[in-house]
Amino acid sequence: MVERTVTAALIIIGNEILSGRTRDANLAYLAAGLNEAGVRMMEARVIPDIEAIIIATVNEMRARFDYVFTTGGIGPTHDDITSPSIAKAFGVPLLRNAEVVAALADYYAQTGRAVQGGLNEARLRMADFPEGAVLVTNPLTRAPGYYIENVYVFAGVPGIMRAMFDAVKPTLRGGRKMHSRALTAALSEGAMAADLARIQDLYPDVEIGSYPFFDQQRYGVSIVARGFELKRVEAATEDVRQMMRALGSEPVDGEVA
Amino acid sequence: MVERTVTAALIIIGNEILSGRTRDANLAYLAAGLNEAGVRMMEARVIPDIEAIIIATVNEMRARFDYVFTTGGIGPTHDDITSPSIAKAFGVPLLRNAEVVAALADYYAQTGRAVQGGLNEARLRMADFPEGAVLVTNPLTRAPGYYIENVYVFAGVPGIMRAMFDAVKPTLRGGRKMHSRALTAALSEGAMAADLARIQDLYPDVEIGSYPFFDQQRYGVSIVARGFELKRVEAATEDVRQMMRALGSEPVDGEVA
Repeated sequence: MVERTVTAALIIIGNEILSGRTRDANLAYLAAGLNEAGVRMMEARVIPDIEAIIIATVNEMRARFDYVFTTGGIGPTHDDITSPSIAKAFGVPLLRNAEVVAALADYYAQTGRAVQGGLNEARLRMADFPEGAVLVTNPLTRAPGYYIENVYVFAGVPGIMRAMFDAVKPTLRGGRKMHSRALTAALSEGAMAADLARIQDLYPDVEIGSYPFFDQQRYGVSIVARGFELKRVEAATEDVRQMMRALGSEPVDGEVA
Repeated sequence: MVERTVTAALIIIGNEILSGRTRDANLAYLAAGLNEAGVRMMEARVIPDIEAIIIATVNEMRARFDYVFTTGGIGPTHDDITSPSIAKAFGVPLLRNAEVVAALADYYAQTGRAVQGGLNEARLRMADFPEGAVLVTNPLTRAPGYYIENVYVFAGVPGIMRAMFDAVKPTLRGGRKMHSRALTAALSEGAMAADLARIQDLYPDVEIGSYPFFDQQRYGVSIVARGFELKRVEAATEDVRQMMRALGSEPVDGEVA
């Protein structure tokens, strides 16, 4: 039986990523977690805080992928425009959620100077959600993320994004999980390229990637094999191991970060 | 006089980024360098090593942006398919460049065990370029990057990508440079959100971004103002400084990384 690949895409919303100010820390976490759930990340996009671009990107990607995740732009400030944009993408109104208002009121009543201003109008925006959204609470803040149909709207701050993703991960309906094995050797990519291509031809159901590294201290290549059938991944990896030995370098299991 | 914004997009080609194996280190460098050249990064995409996707993405983005940069997939192994894909995107043949062949032959003749196999057929693929490509040499390796029309094709290894970008940077025809100023204070975003929105309204030509941070050690927010007119950026920043003081926190210049 051939199962369909369940796909996902990530939309990273934020001028701060595009300007180089902030380096994204969410893609890798999400990709690894999705793989554990049997979902394959197929594309990631970084887009600016511009409503028309958010709407167009969300509508294009939710039609193309099984799951779409967005990060960023759900805080209280003027540059947080993700939720109104998502509502427009789905053609639904933004509605204020009374339970979230109560949770936020409770939170700001309990805490002191650090959260000056109390539950003001700006903070109340974090209680506004597109109609039909299912909230995703998290243990770190009282402001939830949410999903609407197949679009999951999460915070950009990595700790909060992770808590939100971890909350929904058990509910994702994935397909088969990818397995991977890696070998690292002090070899040049070009020395093994022809043999590696032959091994790839023998295992069309296994993706074999070659990742060189070199800096002052280290030099070599990690070969990573990924596929749905663990036995096939392991067999391809053993072929790579023999090939590396034949080229004069004893490989070590795993890869160089 | 209003100058047009000169735009760029980045296409990060690589399964290893989408799987979470490797964290991209090129976007931030490129974005900062482009800004110095007066070019604004408007979008970045991470896509898999799949020819049809590379072709479609390159053709879409080269029509939409002034400059397109790609990283990854120009090495010697079977998973390095960027150059044949670029050639197909432009409808031109791949041609082997005799000067690059000579440079590679020289390099592999000089070096020893580390580059086993000499100038084999796999390594010769690094001398193949789409017809019309202008080569971008770099001091680190003998395998050049290149550009064809407005598409710049660079290595994925960060050190090599940087050398290639630095080589072309003086030739980019940019518009005005964005200036930025930042302030950081131990305040909550929500406490200043209303005032910040009012300051944003006063400076529609300045982008004001709000970036909270909190972990075990630190808590606060950095406000970053960006715009073409330095005086306006500085004036907006002074308004933010007064607002932070009025809320009881003395800001420091700069931001938290």
